[in-house]
Amino acid sequence: MNAVIEQLASHRSIRRYTGRGIDDDLLEDLVRAGQGAASSSFIQAYSIVRVRDTDKRARIAAAAGDQRWVREAPVFLVMCADLLRVARAVRKSRGEQLAGWTEHFLAASVDVALMAQNVMVAAESVGLGAVFIGGIRNDPMTVSEVLDLPEHVYPAFGLCLGWPDQDPEVKPRMPVDMILHEDRYDAARVECDVDRYDDIMREYYAARSENQRTTDWSTPTANAVQGKTREHMLSFLNARGFLKR
Amino acid sequence: MNAVIEQLASHRSIRRYTGRGIDDDLLEDLVRAGQGAASSSFIQAYSIVRVRDTDKRARIAAAAGDQRWVREAPVFLVMCADLLRVARAVRKSRGEQLAGWTEHFLAASVDVALMAQNVMVAAESVGLGAVFIGGIRNDPMTVSEVLDLPEHVYPAFGLCLGWPDQDPEVKPRMPVDMILHEDRYDAARVECDVDRYDDIMREYYAARSENQRTTDWSTPTANAVQGKTREHMLSFLNARGFLKR
Repeated sequence: MNAVIEQLASHRSIRRYTGRGIDDDLLEDLVRAGQGAASSSFIQAYSIVRVRDTDKRARIAAAAGDQRWVREAPVFLVMCADLLRVARAVRKSRGEQLAGWTEHFLAASVDVALMAQNVMVAAESVGLGAVFIGGIRNDPMTVSEVLDLPEHVYPAFGLCLGWPDQDPEVKPRMPVDMILHEDRYDAARVECDVDRYDDIMREYYAARSENQRTTDWSTPTANAVQGKTREHMLSFLNARGFLKR
Repeated sequence: MNAVIEQLASHRSIRRYTGRGIDDDLLEDLVRAGQGAASSSFIQAYSIVRVRDTDKRARIAAAAGDQRWVREAPVFLVMCADLLRVARAVRKSRGEQLAGWTEHFLAASVDVALMAQNVMVAAESVGLGAVFIGGIRNDPMTVSEVLDLPEHVYPAFGLCLGWPDQDPEVKPRMPVDMILHEDRYDAARVECDVDRYDDIMREYYAARSENQRTTDWSTPTANAVQGKTREHMLSFLNARGFLKR
């Protein structure tokens, strides 16, 4: 494995930062690295809103379930799926409106994720730590209002960036053979696979007494997923011009 | 800029490959790098189906609009958003069913994109070239049937990998100030921004006479987006257990 692959395989979310700031030039380099990612039909369907204003930062942190690091990170970015420029291109070139197709929502959502992952990788390559904040989807309308996001733009997730003041372990991922299938997906394996990964995670947590909890993968996953149904998402996205058909 | 950021900012899609194959060990390293990406609540909601079978590869290539490189690439992967293991965890731990919330569709779609971008970056770090294949969404039901994808799993996009046999230029991205906003999104700028980027791309294409076309950004973007509405996506995803509410 080369240094890049080592870096990619050893990502940990960093939620505590030293007081050191991030230069604007460095941030621009990270954004340029983000923009280097592939984009569906080159639509580049993303925008980033950097939130510097203390009051706006606090309102978004509260909307995201009061995550301290959203307030404290030297840089906090809201990564948006953005079809506004595409809508303009469609109007300019063809005199037509974007109709809110599911395909376009998906293309924009993938676009912003590819871009954001490049920003993450670029940040880690210079020693920064970072964490994605899906919690902004707890209250995406408030986030949209705070940042004046127009129709055709939605806040997909946040990204906190800073110089690390913690050194957490890398959690064991699923075994490769659970992820990588050949020529067909064998769905009959799922119960056995989940049991196997539950054993791996139970051993991992049990070996860490400071963790104060012995759990597996299924239990916290089930609780997180069923506790974060975010039932407003479809109507919110509809109101912003997405997923209408 | 360090070497990693340089690499990220200089991505090009590679669609022609030498005859050299990719070792299974290297492919596993790329997948491990992919799995290193952050995952919403650590759900790891993705699977990869490697397609080796020639007949299956040809059927998927045809479904994707007969893209030659889907047949020719030494490795072709179908990157799937996968909530089947999560559904199993929810049933195992809480005796409940996944209900098809939009939030879970989005979390899984972002998860697979973050993972796939890491695979892309890892591949390019060893000199491989790659291209994402959104075209499999032209006919996602055929792709799902060919690969036996179960409910709670959908094929998000493909990924062709191989040793490059071409050296295309990096296309100019949008200026950073079109992407990076501060504290608020100024939607009033969009017409002017799109005009500006149209000028940049028109100059770029005009300087390349071999390209045989002088166009801008808006025209091909509008045509691509309006030509790829993929109107089946919502009913397809509904049938696979996604985006039901």
